[in-house]
Amino acid sequence: MQGAVLYGARDVRFEERATPRIVHPTDAIIRIAATCICGSDLWPYRGINKVDAPAPFGHEYCGVVEEVGSAVTKVKPGQFVIGSFFASDNTCPHCQAGYQTSCQHRELVGGAQAPMLRVPLADGTLVATPEHPPAELVPSLLALSDVMGTGWFGADAADVRPGKTALVVGDGAVGLLGVLSAREMGAARIIAMSRNPPRQKLAREFGATDIVTERGDEGVGRVKELTGGIGADSVLECVGTMEAMTQAIRSTRPGGHVGYVGVPHGVTLGGQDLFFRHVRLHGGPAPVRRYLPQLIELVWSRKINPGKVFDLTLPLAEVAEGYRAMDERRAIKTLLRP
Amino acid sequence: MQGAVLYGARDVRFEERATPRIVHPTDAIIRIAATCICGSDLWPYRGINKVDAPAPFGHEYCGVVEEVGSAVTKVKPGQFVIGSFFASDNTCPHCQAGYQTSCQHRELVGGAQAPMLRVPLADGTLVATPEHPPAELVPSLLALSDVMGTGWFGADAADVRPGKTALVVGDGAVGLLGVLSAREMGAARIIAMSRNPPRQKLAREFGATDIVTERGDEGVGRVKELTGGIGADSVLECVGTMEAMTQAIRSTRPGGHVGYVGVPHGVTLGGQDLFFRHVRLHGGPAPVRRYLPQLIELVWSRKINPGKVFDLTLPLAEVAEGYRAMDERRAIKTLLRP
Repeated sequence: MQGAVLYGARDVRFEERATPRIVHPTDAIIRIAATCICGSDLWPYRGINKVDAPAPFGHEYCGVVEEVGSAVTKVKPGQFVIGSFFASDNTCPHCQAGYQTSCQHRELVGGAQAPMLRVPLADGTLVATPEHPPAELVPSLLALSDVMGTGWFGADAADVRPGKTALVVGDGAVGLLGVLSAREMGAARIIAMSRNPPRQKLAREFGATDIVTERGDEGVGRVKELTGGIGADSVLECVGTMEAMTQAIRSTRPGGHVGYVGVPHGVTLGGQDLFFRHVRLHGGPAPVRRYLPQLIELVWSRKINPGKVFDLTLPLAEVAEGYRAMDERRAIKTLLRP
Repeated sequence: MQGAVLYGARDVRFEERATPRIVHPTDAIIRIAATCICGSDLWPYRGINKVDAPAPFGHEYCGVVEEVGSAVTKVKPGQFVIGSFFASDNTCPHCQAGYQTSCQHRELVGGAQAPMLRVPLADGTLVATPEHPPAELVPSLLALSDVMGTGWFGADAADVRPGKTALVVGDGAVGLLGVLSAREMGAARIIAMSRNPPRQKLAREFGATDIVTERGDEGVGRVKELTGGIGADSVLECVGTMEAMTQAIRSTRPGGHVGYVGVPHGVTLGGQDLFFRHVRLHGGPAPVRRYLPQLIELVWSRKINPGKVFDLTLPLAEVAEGYRAMDERRAIKTLLRP
């Protein structure tokens, strides 16, 4: 088969790779219906995370089970399934506590930008849809594999509740789906920070009530202005830079929550500043598996349409153009069809 | 009157100071029944926080109201009262949210190591006991002014709940009262980190079920061993050093809570490490005012006896010896009687 391989900074190739096969009895092989490019893929693509050797890329997927290992009992060939970027057994104490991305046996799922994928710990990782989905639901189901679950975790970690004010820092796909999550969780006011008109528009469609274009001190000032001088109750940090984290922490009311889901790059927090700001911090790699059943139900019943973040769809063979479009911010998120 | 003045590193003097008087109509003047020395007073005492000019010292107090300003309506002369180290109006949005130490009009209370004290924002800051307390309750009531409220906030911020495992990092007065707080909140298992036999003994009296003497990697390993390889649900960081904060974060289970109440000195947190550990962080200057009514009730009904942390009582005139004893760890906490 042919799939995406990252060779180094801005060098993604579509080339022959070994077709995945069952390695462990707990594995499943999936025929990919749709895959995509993640904002976090841009860190190595841009050379910020070093790539030591050519690596099969991609970690978002949904599709039909082709084959399962001998120890797999719940997942069956023919089912349409979605899984997280971290495989998890869903039975260890961390999984039971809802932190499947800290599973004691977790494994990264890699190489999903391809027609076929091996998923470890299939019984714990994959969740089947009620039946094969109609084509128009596939983008939204694919989004549950990472970005939607990540936005949802950001809102959950930021303790978004009915009637509260949520602020979303970052207008990438995760940030936009953080807006959608905050709306679903009942936030009365949702402030999105964005300077990009098409993203502002999508943020409004997803439920943003206010857009803030200012950044830094001006951004904090504007959020304070919008919240009666108090700050936001719940702040979702969906970027991972020091600038975004600082923005998030400084915009939060004392006792308020920052949910941070952008993979931190160059972020260091001063203990004393954090102390006197009185904010609550929680974040990390989203335990997507925890939310999959609930989010599949919301997509299946057409209550949410996270697939709207895909504003570019390409054949898998054009994966390199998909990366370029996201790198240059011409696309929010690229969906790839094998 | 004569009170404590800090001149510089290890230079505390007991000397003549102006007797406090009403400055703002919202002030009250208190005749101090008992005051004490705080672990945080040791930062400037040891020269780690710089002292620019001689400063009246101390911020823990209880005593009888001598006089009130013209705008004070709730607090009355003759009442026995306790207040926090931060004065707060108790009406602003931050106070209403329970974060009185982030009050929009907060003021540090200073110079409490003296016979008389001016307390700003008296109506918002001071809470009266049901009647004048018997002498044996005074140490425990004094402890509510800071250390007990701080230990309680640490446990609350760490989300201690019935049946859960709590770990307390730090065996100073705050850490020991963190143990007591965790017991009151129903923790099934309370692990105290301490190498000091008298402090270990007091920790056990306050409810510690396990003592860990190891530190660093060994300390984390021992906590993991005691918790089935998982880590503690709730961790109270009661020191403020990088070593203690690292110990706390690394001993917490994914999804668990770190409540940090030691004033951070030289603490910086790496964003990526925090991200992948999945812990929840909350802390800051304890909003003692929020807890005062509840804690007064617990002391008044003899359910808790936080005054036990005072293992040295001196006349106020011997304040310098009180500092020395704590600096050299000969005393856990020094009570001073004017």
